[in-house]
Amino acid sequence: MKEIRRDSITGDSVIYSSFRNKRPLDKVNSTNDFDSKDNEYSSSCPFCRGNEKETDTLKEELFDDEDWVAKCVSNKFPILDMSTKEIFGDHEVIIETNRHNGSYYNMSIDEFKNTFRLFSSRYKELSETKGIKYVSIFKNSKRNAGASLMHPHSQIVSFNMIPPEIEKELEVAKKHIAATGRNLYDDIIMSEISYGKRIIYNGEYFLAFVPYATRYNGEVRIIAKTKDDVGDWKEKHIDELSYIFKNLFVKLDAYQGEIPFNLLVHTYPLECEGRKVFRTHMHIVPRKYNFGGFELSTNFFVCGTDPDALASDLKF
Amino acid sequence: MKEIRRDSITGDSVIYSSFRNKRPLDKVNSTNDFDSKDNEYSSSCPFCRGNEKETDTLKEELFDDEDWVAKCVSNKFPILDMSTKEIFGDHEVIIETNRHNGSYYNMSIDEFKNTFRLFSSRYKELSETKGIKYVSIFKNSKRNAGASLMHPHSQIVSFNMIPPEIEKELEVAKKHIAATGRNLYDDIIMSEISYGKRIIYNGEYFLAFVPYATRYNGEVRIIAKTKDDVGDWKEKHIDELSYIFKNLFVKLDAYQGEIPFNLLVHTYPLECEGRKVFRTHMHIVPRKYNFGGFELSTNFFVCGTDPDALASDLKF
Repeated sequence: MKEIRRDSITGDSVIYSSFRNKRPLDKVNSTNDFDSKDNEYSSSCPFCRGNEKETDTLKEELFDDEDWVAKCVSNKFPILDMSTKEIFGDHEVIIETNRHNGSYYNMSIDEFKNTFRLFSSRYKELSETKGIKYVSIFKNSKRNAGASLMHPHSQIVSFNMIPPEIEKELEVAKKHIAATGRNLYDDIIMSEISYGKRIIYNGEYFLAFVPYATRYNGEVRIIAKTKDDVGDWKEKHIDELSYIFKNLFVKLDAYQGEIPFNLLVHTYPLECEGRKVFRTHMHIVPRKYNFGGFELSTNFFVCGTDPDALASDLKF
Repeated sequence: MKEIRRDSITGDSVIYSSFRNKRPLDKVNSTNDFDSKDNEYSSSCPFCRGNEKETDTLKEELFDDEDWVAKCVSNKFPILDMSTKEIFGDHEVIIETNRHNGSYYNMSIDEFKNTFRLFSSRYKELSETKGIKYVSIFKNSKRNAGASLMHPHSQIVSFNMIPPEIEKELEVAKKHIAATGRNLYDDIIMSEISYGKRIIYNGEYFLAFVPYATRYNGEVRIIAKTKDDVGDWKEKHIDELSYIFKNLFVKLDAYQGEIPFNLLVHTYPLECEGRKVFRTHMHIVPRKYNFGGFELSTNFFVCGTDPDALASDLKF
């Protein structure tokens, strides 16, 4: 079965082809990734406890009784900096745990809480810088998802402009409110809850579900049910989000193993009617296979995952 | 130095950051790829001589004195087929040589000629099918570029619609002709020849060069100097293109080794004023690193290659 499906958030057209996942692959020599037998500490890792001289300027630290357990530093090789007027911003690295061999697949609820506390406080600080119009938070887990270092970390980048992908999502949301008078994300939350079969977890503050259409096979989405942005998160939001991430990654591991993934946090644009038309949401994108020439050449993506079946495997 | 550069063909905004390429990478266990010690024949490969029963319907074959040396078969796991009206098309695989261990890095001029002969004849046949509006040709070389099988092959897919990436390029070209009265691609060819330093090879029918701005670090482009589409190629076009590919991949190998890449052939849309505004062209995209959460989340791409320096290394 082949059909075109439209992603309700991005507006992307996706080719849904139910049996493309069955094609054969040559055996590969081994996985192109980090050593999973790593210890909690690596002497060569700039993000490990004790190697602080390797990292760039410290921005924020969280402590337990003994030492730091999560922190934020400026990125030594920033995509953006404040040196030019045409395009500027900050680029920081959030070190999510002191454990070198940590990952979302094995982090504790407390480690997730520290991660989201830093998301919130760094977002707040970066979004208050003059001229900044957007703050992006994302994570690359493993080499195949674009990670250059293994130690669990995410990144936060501020911009003096709204990135193209967010402009695209805003456009879709603005068209929806113009046509219906209703917020697109509220409508998606309502219709997902009403349909039910794509839901992974329906919380008080967040809804986790598998989208009906996405360019990324196996993507999971989390939409905030309230108008709070990342900088507004209280402990109650962070508690629920940590519970969702802990359980989701246990389920993902059981379903497909510890495959590479990206976390994309789509926050509010800072200077527009964001809260009326938009809602903070997250895309969790598995990166088992690489995009090939078909996707690069056409900007069509082919998807073969049945969303109801995937949600049923991941729900908790 | 950070700046925004605009890709003259796609219109993409690219963040140019001159020292992002210097960041450190953890060592990986080994490369995630096929076995380079493979022989000319593999008993388990559906594309090898003698294993014909494994492939799907034969579409076309080219022979030397003894046996087939290149051929085209229907794709056993098609992205599109003719079974639905909403989205339909054909999906074929061009087996570029009988040698299992062949690649663009080691193929002979004759092997390239056979490849481009099949591009041309298959394009011609697929573009004449009723309802087809676009024919896409692309190649994934090695696993990191999306290849599922190692035996050298490219793919051709026809569509009952113009793919989004081509619509985007058409839009840019239409705006240029509306503003200047001139064809965008003719203007790019003129200005590249006049500047000179980004040229890799300036042929009679094709210009190969490094674009000033591209979202893909290290991309090489080839633009047709004439209005011929892929189906119009004569032996003189195929000869020059084979000469360009043979020499380019020898240079690329010497420059950075046999890294994964995609070839994207952007052909004319079939039902529009294509030949007035557009020109057949190719993107050769190295896939050394994977796109990460930054690119997926923002649709901004960061580039750090100096085009003049790269062209100087690749020119012949």
